[in-house]
Amino acid sequence: MTDHIYWKNGALYLLDQRALPFKKTYVRCRRLKDIVEAINNMTVRGAPLLGIVAAYGVVLGIQEIIQSKKPVKESDIKRIVKLLGDTRPTAVNLFWALRKMAEACESCSNEKDFLESMLEEAIAIHVDDIENNRMLSLFGAELIDDGDTILTHCNAGALATGGYGTALGVIRAAHESGKKIRVIATETRPYMQGARLTVWELMEEKIPVELVPENHAGILCASKAINKIIVGADRIARNGDAANKIGTFMIALCAHQFKIPFFVAAPVSTFDNSIENGTFIAIEKRDGREVKYLGDKLLTVKDVKARYYGFDVTPEKFITNFITEKGIIEKPFKKYIEMLFETQGSMPILPRGRSLRSQP
Amino acid sequence: MTDHIYWKNGALYLLDQRALPFKKTYVRCRRLKDIVEAINNMTVRGAPLLGIVAAYGVVLGIQEIIQSKKPVKESDIKRIVKLLGDTRPTAVNLFWALRKMAEACESCSNEKDFLESMLEEAIAIHVDDIENNRMLSLFGAELIDDGDTILTHCNAGALATGGYGTALGVIRAAHESGKKIRVIATETRPYMQGARLTVWELMEEKIPVELVPENHAGILCASKAINKIIVGADRIARNGDAANKIGTFMIALCAHQFKIPFFVAAPVSTFDNSIENGTFIAIEKRDGREVKYLGDKLLTVKDVKARYYGFDVTPEKFITNFITEKGIIEKPFKKYIEMLFETQGSMPILPRGRSLRSQP
Repeated sequence: MTDHIYWKNGALYLLDQRALPFKKTYVRCRRLKDIVEAINNMTVRGAPLLGIVAAYGVVLGIQEIIQSKKPVKESDIKRIVKLLGDTRPTAVNLFWALRKMAEACESCSNEKDFLESMLEEAIAIHVDDIENNRMLSLFGAELIDDGDTILTHCNAGALATGGYGTALGVIRAAHESGKKIRVIATETRPYMQGARLTVWELMEEKIPVELVPENHAGILCASKAINKIIVGADRIARNGDAANKIGTFMIALCAHQFKIPFFVAAPVSTFDNSIENGTFIAIEKRDGREVKYLGDKLLTVKDVKARYYGFDVTPEKFITNFITEKGIIEKPFKKYIEMLFETQGSMPILPRGRSLRSQP
Repeated sequence: MTDHIYWKNGALYLLDQRALPFKKTYVRCRRLKDIVEAINNMTVRGAPLLGIVAAYGVVLGIQEIIQSKKPVKESDIKRIVKLLGDTRPTAVNLFWALRKMAEACESCSNEKDFLESMLEEAIAIHVDDIENNRMLSLFGAELIDDGDTILTHCNAGALATGGYGTALGVIRAAHESGKKIRVIATETRPYMQGARLTVWELMEEKIPVELVPENHAGILCASKAINKIIVGADRIARNGDAANKIGTFMIALCAHQFKIPFFVAAPVSTFDNSIENGTFIAIEKRDGREVKYLGDKLLTVKDVKARYYGFDVTPEKFITNFITEKGIIEKPFKKYIEMLFETQGSMPILPRGRSLRSQP
């Protein structure tokens, strides 16, 4: 499940997520514009994956300049970073990865093997993401009990990340540890990432999964047909307000109403230290045609106006815990999120002894 | 907009709602089994319309027996009523209409023109429904202000009723009275009644409408992009708990969170005097394939299990008012719903002077 993004012979290969689970085709990106297009047209999606793809995008941008025998100037890097940063506004991992790549440019632009160094940096971002996902999943699995039925929204799986996944990583780790769990996947309109990607990933791993339209979260919470909810995130503010796929907020409200634990699994790169709360998160508004058509199938009256926000913000009060590679974050979130930014290296935060390391 | 159900030459003609808005085709029902099939396979849907169709279904069942030169026995009527009652469990209007038809059978089974009398009864149920919708819509329009943006879920329009509609009837009446209103229609998975039917009805009437996936209700409430919500209902308990299309409850929770008025428009035939609260409402569980396929287009992995509840129950505390043909029902609902059953004739309930008749 980690062959959905790889680098080979100076090009990035991306599994086309629009065609899954029906076809497994790859898009070969040799130029910066291919990456911009792949992000814009939803060939790839998922906050951590967007960061990784953007990092490789910087490499491709630099490669193009070097291949045309021109010197790579500071203004070139700025242009490349801006082009990639302008693709999608909500996922902060994109900007985080671009910042890391820009910093790496500065520190190694005089090296002989500049391009190779930059590729190494992109690969490091990619590999670190997989490692972080495995780590956060081990922490998160401690929150899952044998016999749980867990609802997840959209796709926060291997496909949304460098590999292994965040929300689905936690589910995967709990399953691998021998816990018997069941998953309810919401189909997630309009791109059906739940129906197409989450269901596919879980069935490949033989983890029991059942599909529902996302309008079922209310009845499932009310009837206690689920007892936990785990989702990913695209950007988390300093106070814990979290942007994620549109519809997440409504599901969190239902969870709150029926006292069902609602977990957000995300690597530290998803936390945005620069914003105090969710009101500062830019919400992407996409073309209404993406609601009106499913592939080329028209779903409504042709001329109707349609609206499609890609994300919504779940206020921190509706979130039970965050699951990160540094440990489980408990309330008060603000305090522990601040610690997250202060902590050096990979030392986990250990609030209330919930982390792996404190297990007997 | 009232040609979606009509009787002609001993047959009932039903506009096939599965094909709208792309094709306008009619299903001709000449036998009882045609009606049972049309209800089961979603040719027709909508609580008040199901009642009307079932009433005509009783007529067709009786007509079949008379055409075969047999006497119509009491046991025949029981069998016909049971067959129709077994189609769909949630909408109480279906059972209400069947009870009315059974009572009419008893009182006129000895008449010479028995079949004609029964047809007259079915037509009366049909005509009364349209009248009731017009009346409740006039009451409801008083709750709508010039400049409102109103969200509605699924389709509670002319197509869901004998004609004119309940939730869309209120919107229609407000529009006809000259108020400038805008509607946000949720697409309503999996049958897309919002995208296909509500959008179509409103565009035909030139009422401004915009389509969103139902997972948008949260962000629309949070951003105050809507300021009122109106939905229909399939069954309302004595305390005001109301079953409606799956997803309604989640929308009501969002409305409650942001103090947005949430109205339920339904004729008195939707109130079920026999049940104390929503826990007694049978929720239809339909075939999971209806979630997995859109028409013949597979949306997910072929072998995945899928779940589809047709309805959910919104607890009365999340409902602001009921809109009926007898007037607006305010809180405490239990008290006024009891009055609804006690009131004779068409005298409106006048709590707090909100009804039409108390307007200066």
